[in-house]
Amino acid sequence: MIEVKLKDLGELSDRFNLQMPKGMFLCTRDKERDNVMTIGWGFIGVMWGKPVLNVVVRPTRYTHELLSNSDVFIVGVPKADEMKEALQICGTVSGRDRDKFELARLKKGEGRSVNAPVVEGCETQYECKILYRQAMDPTFLNKEIDKRHYPKKDYHVFYIGEIIDCY
Amino acid sequence: MIEVKLKDLGELSDRFNLQMPKGMFLCTRDKERDNVMTIGWGFIGVMWGKPVLNVVVRPTRYTHELLSNSDVFIVGVPKADEMKEALQICGTVSGRDRDKFELARLKKGEGRSVNAPVVEGCETQYECKILYRQAMDPTFLNKEIDKRHYPKKDYHVFYIGEIIDCY
Repeated sequence: MIEVKLKDLGELSDRFNLQMPKGMFLCTRDKERDNVMTIGWGFIGVMWGKPVLNVVVRPTRYTHELLSNSDVFIVGVPKADEMKEALQICGTVSGRDRDKFELARLKKGEGRSVNAPVVEGCETQYECKILYRQAMDPTFLNKEIDKRHYPKKDYHVFYIGEIIDCY
Repeated sequence: MIEVKLKDLGELSDRFNLQMPKGMFLCTRDKERDNVMTIGWGFIGVMWGKPVLNVVVRPTRYTHELLSNSDVFIVGVPKADEMKEALQICGTVSGRDRDKFELARLKKGEGRSVNAPVVEGCETQYECKILYRQAMDPTFLNKEIDKRHYPKKDYHVFYIGEIIDCY
C-alpha cells in the first residue's frame, strides 16, 4: 500500500474529472454480494486534511443497499473511450437482477487495500474508506434542479471516502 | 462570460486540487458587506450534469453569515507560494473585526459574472452560483474525525456551487 499524499492530489484529480462526465465504475461489496455501477457525478478534493472522493448514490440503487453494510468503495477510471459498452450496461441494469461483471464481460479483481472488488484493466483505481455519509435534504436545493432530477424524490446520498490507495 | 463546459473540468480541477492544501481565497458578499477567508478544504467535480465546486464553511464563521444572504461565491486560486502572508491573515483574522482585504493588502476587484468581490492577481477565479447547501449531520461521521475536528460541535456547512465562469 502506497500512502496517498495531499501533494499528489492535483495529478490524481485531473484524470478523475476529465473522465467523470464519460462515466466511471463504482465497485462495492457487502458480506455476501459484489456490485459495480456506472457513476457520472462525484467530487474529488480535500477534507479533514485528507485526499477524498465524494460519490453520490440514489437510495433506490442496489449499490446503496450494499454500502449500507460496508465502509469502503473503489472507483475505477476506465481508459478514455474504452469500455463504453460496459459503462452503458453498468449504468442501466440493476445488480439485483444480474451479475453485472459477468453481463458486461468485465474482469473482476480484488482491491489491494480495501475489501471490495475492482474492474481490472482500468487506468486508475481509487480505493476509499468511508468517513462520512449523509442523505440530501431538499430544503436548500435549487428548485429547478429539484424538479428536473428528483421527480421521484429519490435524493442522493453523499459518501465521502478517504483515498487510502491509488494506482 | 465564457460558458464552462464539463470537458474543461479536468484541466480546471488539476490547479484546484494542487493548490487546495496550500490554501485559496473564498470571497463572499451580502447586501452591505464583503469578506474573504482562506479555505484549505473543498471539492471539485460534476453534479447534476454541471461542473461544480463544493466548499465547506463552519457556521461560526463570518463568511457563513454572509452566505446566508447570498446565492454566489468566488474562489480565487493564488499563484503557487505567492500571497502566503495574505492567506495566513485571511485564515486567522475574522472579517467581523477587520476589513481583511485591507489588512492583508489584497487588491479587491469585482466578479465578472456574479455579484461578489475577487482577490485580484490570483491565478484562477471560479465564479459560482450556489445550487445546494446543507449542514453536516454527525450521525454517520467517523468518530475519530468527529473528536479531532469538531470538539466544539461546529459542523461544517456544504455549499455546492455551479462554476458559471472561470478565468
